[in-house]
Amino acid sequence: MNLSEAYAELLPVVEAEMRAILSASEPILARHYDMMQYHMGWLDADLRPAEAATGKRLRPLLCLLACAAVGGDPGRAAPAAAGLELLHNFSLIHDDIEDDSPTRRHRPTLWKLFGMPMACNAGDGMFSLAHGAFHRLGRHGVPAAAVLEALRIFGEMCTALTEGQFLDMAFEARLDVTVDEYFAMIRGKTGALFTAAPQLGALIGGAPADAVEAYRDFGAGLGRAFQLQDDLLGIWGDEALTGKSAASDILSRKKSLPVVYALGHPVVGEQLRRLYAGVPFDCADLPLVLRLLDAAAARGYVEAQVREAIVEAQTALAAARPFAVSEAHQVLGELLDSLVNRRS
Amino acid sequence: MNLSEAYAELLPVVEAEMRAILSASEPILARHYDMMQYHMGWLDADLRPAEAATGKRLRPLLCLLACAAVGGDPGRAAPAAAGLELLHNFSLIHDDIEDDSPTRRHRPTLWKLFGMPMACNAGDGMFSLAHGAFHRLGRHGVPAAAVLEALRIFGEMCTALTEGQFLDMAFEARLDVTVDEYFAMIRGKTGALFTAAPQLGALIGGAPADAVEAYRDFGAGLGRAFQLQDDLLGIWGDEALTGKSAASDILSRKKSLPVVYALGHPVVGEQLRRLYAGVPFDCADLPLVLRLLDAAAARGYVEAQVREAIVEAQTALAAARPFAVSEAHQVLGELLDSLVNRRS
Repeated sequence: MNLSEAYAELLPVVEAEMRAILSASEPILARHYDMMQYHMGWLDADLRPAEAATGKRLRPLLCLLACAAVGGDPGRAAPAAAGLELLHNFSLIHDDIEDDSPTRRHRPTLWKLFGMPMACNAGDGMFSLAHGAFHRLGRHGVPAAAVLEALRIFGEMCTALTEGQFLDMAFEARLDVTVDEYFAMIRGKTGALFTAAPQLGALIGGAPADAVEAYRDFGAGLGRAFQLQDDLLGIWGDEALTGKSAASDILSRKKSLPVVYALGHPVVGEQLRRLYAGVPFDCADLPLVLRLLDAAAARGYVEAQVREAIVEAQTALAAARPFAVSEAHQVLGELLDSLVNRRS
Repeated sequence: MNLSEAYAELLPVVEAEMRAILSASEPILARHYDMMQYHMGWLDADLRPAEAATGKRLRPLLCLLACAAVGGDPGRAAPAAAGLELLHNFSLIHDDIEDDSPTRRHRPTLWKLFGMPMACNAGDGMFSLAHGAFHRLGRHGVPAAAVLEALRIFGEMCTALTEGQFLDMAFEARLDVTVDEYFAMIRGKTGALFTAAPQLGALIGGAPADAVEAYRDFGAGLGRAFQLQDDLLGIWGDEALTGKSAASDILSRKKSLPVVYALGHPVVGEQLRRLYAGVPFDCADLPLVLRLLDAAAARGYVEAQVREAIVEAQTALAAARPFAVSEAHQVLGELLDSLVNRRS
């Protein structure tokens, strides 16, 4: 099994789980669930069946691969994988509301189409159903104690996610965010889900505690590498490949790591802070901001951080190897490589 | 023990649970939790300690009384009671955003004070922490199987709540809402929490399945009576007692049961629908709307529905009596009486 085979083999059962979960029990509730299905890419803006872009489904894949790696039947973990992906999508629905974002994956965001109140509540519905997914694990033969432990991990992950989102929004108004604070933010906002996904898969696969921890640490390293790579692409990515405008994260004044690092730089920090204090950015400032990031060697700093996160993930994966009984373990390494070498 | 003794004896432990749950683990997260604490009435608008109005804490009380009624230690159910109250408050935070409400309990709403994005996310945090509360049950000696079952009931309750909120918002744009649809809406929006609260208490108290069901049905009847009473007070309540303007639910065009019933009335329905189709209501229309509700005998119809709901609750309470081992059972009957006889 290689990575693309893993996608093809493992993900259809997760899609089926999610479709079963996001279906109305009564006709009067159809629209509530249709809104969620629109966000998932299964319906178009007129609520007719569609096949829109659905996102990468990385989190469910991590969960199922870790379950398979330790010798578990990945189908058993499908409800947990579905819960992770639904929770991720809940967070996107609310992020789009909170960030006032009009589009996602080249389509209008849920709130833009159905209004903020309905979209906010549809997000709440998906949040609740993501938890509900875990109660389907019992039908797949997962023991009650493991289901309860999975729900505990999942619940703490949700709390960490909202804490990360709080920090991300709080940073918007600040020019003195430290690198440590930045890492605390992404540990919640991106890291929580990436950490929990393989942790939950290994747990449901019946792995011993040491292995569950190793896969958790793997997810933490991978999630950090993924987010830092995102930060690099948001400034230096190829417009034609990312589908976003060049330096989009600078124009939106995002406190991504290159910017946080340069804002605190002893030489260029003060000038950069003056630019970031102005409202709004002049597009003409863009070359100057990029020059200041260069002068701070921000790109190299972040690239080094990516390498460090990759090493952390690889070390954790090696620690898990003694417990691994299937080639799925190998595919997790392949997944790590593909994410940090991506151009979009 | 009578009702006011029950309040005094049982609720402080729930407050302590909630305060423990809504506390930041790191200083950088303080403001995220302070926002939640402001909503709970524990902090003022400057985030200094306060003792603002906190709401009636009915749901935790129902939970603890049912636990005690079947012979359980009510302190064991405190985390579940805290989870119910936190979930209720999460729903208020998001309702205020979705309804664009500037005040609650005579104070600015959370979004009004801290902005919609932060308030929405603080609500999500509280939603997540409400689930987390149930994982504290284990420390109180509740067996894992009962914790898992409690989380399943709680999760389904959350989903029903978001479905009820969807219907409530969907009804705003409609003049043809049926009485059946209205009842489906309040079963989710108000009923879900009132139903789950005594059900969870009895479950955690170790009651047999029949008793858990009887207390659940008691909660369903009580919740319906409570909401219908609210509908009556929203139109015919005494301004001086409710603290709201007279006929406030008519001015806000709320699709409460008296209005839904009269909108579908064969004689006055058409005239009332024409009035409700106009935007905005003229205050001068108010006496006419009240006359049309009178002509439809809407008040008498809803009062009869309240009596029916009370009988349902009383019947369920009688069915639970054989399992009841403490005077807390009696207090539940007292609580029912107090709610349906309230004037505010």
